[in-house]
Amino acid sequence: MSQPVSHKVDGLTRFRVDFAYDGTDYTGWAKQPGLKTVQGDLLAAMTTIFGPTENDFGMRIAGRTDAGVHAANQVAHVDLSDAQLKRLGRNPNVVARLNHMMSEAIRIHEFKPAASGFDARFSAIYRRYRYQISDNFAQKDPKQMRYVLNLTYALDPVAMNEAAQLLLGLNDFASFCKTRAGATTIRDLKRIKVRRNSQNIIEIELKADAFCHNMVRSIVGALIAVGAGKANQADLKRTLERAKRVETYKTVEPKGLTLIEIGYPADSRLGIQAERSRARRTLDEA
Amino acid sequence: MSQPVSHKVDGLTRFRVDFAYDGTDYTGWAKQPGLKTVQGDLLAAMTTIFGPTENDFGMRIAGRTDAGVHAANQVAHVDLSDAQLKRLGRNPNVVARLNHMMSEAIRIHEFKPAASGFDARFSAIYRRYRYQISDNFAQKDPKQMRYVLNLTYALDPVAMNEAAQLLLGLNDFASFCKTRAGATTIRDLKRIKVRRNSQNIIEIELKADAFCHNMVRSIVGALIAVGAGKANQADLKRTLERAKRVETYKTVEPKGLTLIEIGYPADSRLGIQAERSRARRTLDEA
Repeated sequence: MSQPVSHKVDGLTRFRVDFAYDGTDYTGWAKQPGLKTVQGDLLAAMTTIFGPTENDFGMRIAGRTDAGVHAANQVAHVDLSDAQLKRLGRNPNVVARLNHMMSEAIRIHEFKPAASGFDARFSAIYRRYRYQISDNFAQKDPKQMRYVLNLTYALDPVAMNEAAQLLLGLNDFASFCKTRAGATTIRDLKRIKVRRNSQNIIEIELKADAFCHNMVRSIVGALIAVGAGKANQADLKRTLERAKRVETYKTVEPKGLTLIEIGYPADSRLGIQAERSRARRTLDEA
Repeated sequence: MSQPVSHKVDGLTRFRVDFAYDGTDYTGWAKQPGLKTVQGDLLAAMTTIFGPTENDFGMRIAGRTDAGVHAANQVAHVDLSDAQLKRLGRNPNVVARLNHMMSEAIRIHEFKPAASGFDARFSAIYRRYRYQISDNFAQKDPKQMRYVLNLTYALDPVAMNEAAQLLLGLNDFASFCKTRAGATTIRDLKRIKVRRNSQNIIEIELKADAFCHNMVRSIVGALIAVGAGKANQADLKRTLERAKRVETYKTVEPKGLTLIEIGYPADSRLGIQAERSRARRTLDEA
């Protein structure tokens, strides 16, 4: 790791952390007292290197994930003081040291000084998730059991894909969200694609500016109903337009869900994007 | 499943069972009192369908695997009486019923009447295994943590592959086997190939008539020493020629090992092959 020289704000240097995890054995991302969480394990390892922290190193995450959900490419940032960085001593390979201390279920890919204006959460312009389902068409692979929802009946991915397109664009996704007081459920779904891959696994990929709580798993539940012939396009459209949480469709198991990518703009736009996202958030919470 | 009509021997119908498992949470294939094993779980599920058994349904396995070793395509046979088959009743879908009763860590792919002369173990003409290693070249994938040995140093797969070819052919592999009294350690290694795949995982693939106990994992340990520059071709050749168990090289962890394929001859040769294998085994044990 090269020693950071710039982008110090209030005496702190911001680092961008890129990492992956298998969420099976974790109670989600966010730290919770007494529970095994991804953030809890990461903070514990960082504390061993950088010393005790009172503010979780100012850590912020791009895509908060629920219990059992996986991440192939997650992004966080932390702010470290010169005193904390000094503790690196003669071994500045933070990636190797963190990975050595943690379970192989969490793997740090990069830990490097962030570009100016970078905020892991607020600079992000999109999040991309993938949900995997094995229907009765596929030969079941035990090595995929933690990452694929196994169904014993047939799904029609073409019908699912057609119906899915009705959800595209800027919509109030309240019907598919576990609402939080004061938080908006309006999201911009930029892409949704359902297809059967070469291993006969049905992949549902979704890309949006952001997702509200449970949104992917609720949409997948509705699309499974379509794929199994229990609902049609009109049903899905009606559900969306109701814009109120419904229990018509099952929120599917977390294990099939993986955060695939966090999208950021070019370095020159990181700060502006962060300001825009923050402003929107302030409006939400007003 | 079509009702079997032929190949009845001593009133029993032989079935071929094709299946896969993730061995992580099992104490190997073979049943052991009080331990969670693949065979133990399979027998329990079969007993629910076919009733109690005094001889484990005459079950025989093609490639017995150790604790923590996986199988992508394992083969076994069982012999069932008409009385046992009658218990299928109106639901002859044995595959679905077994899978429903077992953990997703074991998945039955096929359960069907065997061709005449078929013996899962003795009719087999080869076994193919794959061992996977991630060295410091690859970005670590938490979803592979149960199937790939993670190393923090670099390996040279080209050097490993070249050295590996020295092991080819009919050899006494005693140096790489945990010997069992009276059992031969002479094996015919038909193919061995080391390569870095498109995901930067080093794959070591071995094909032999059969493998003795610990053979793949001991060979992989020796090849890792070669790949890390700690041993050369001459060392490997000397080890093979010593033909006596050595502790020079580490027997690697089971988690990287997967049984990929059991090879059988054409149906017309199943019986003859079984007789040949049995005869050889009798010589071994004489």
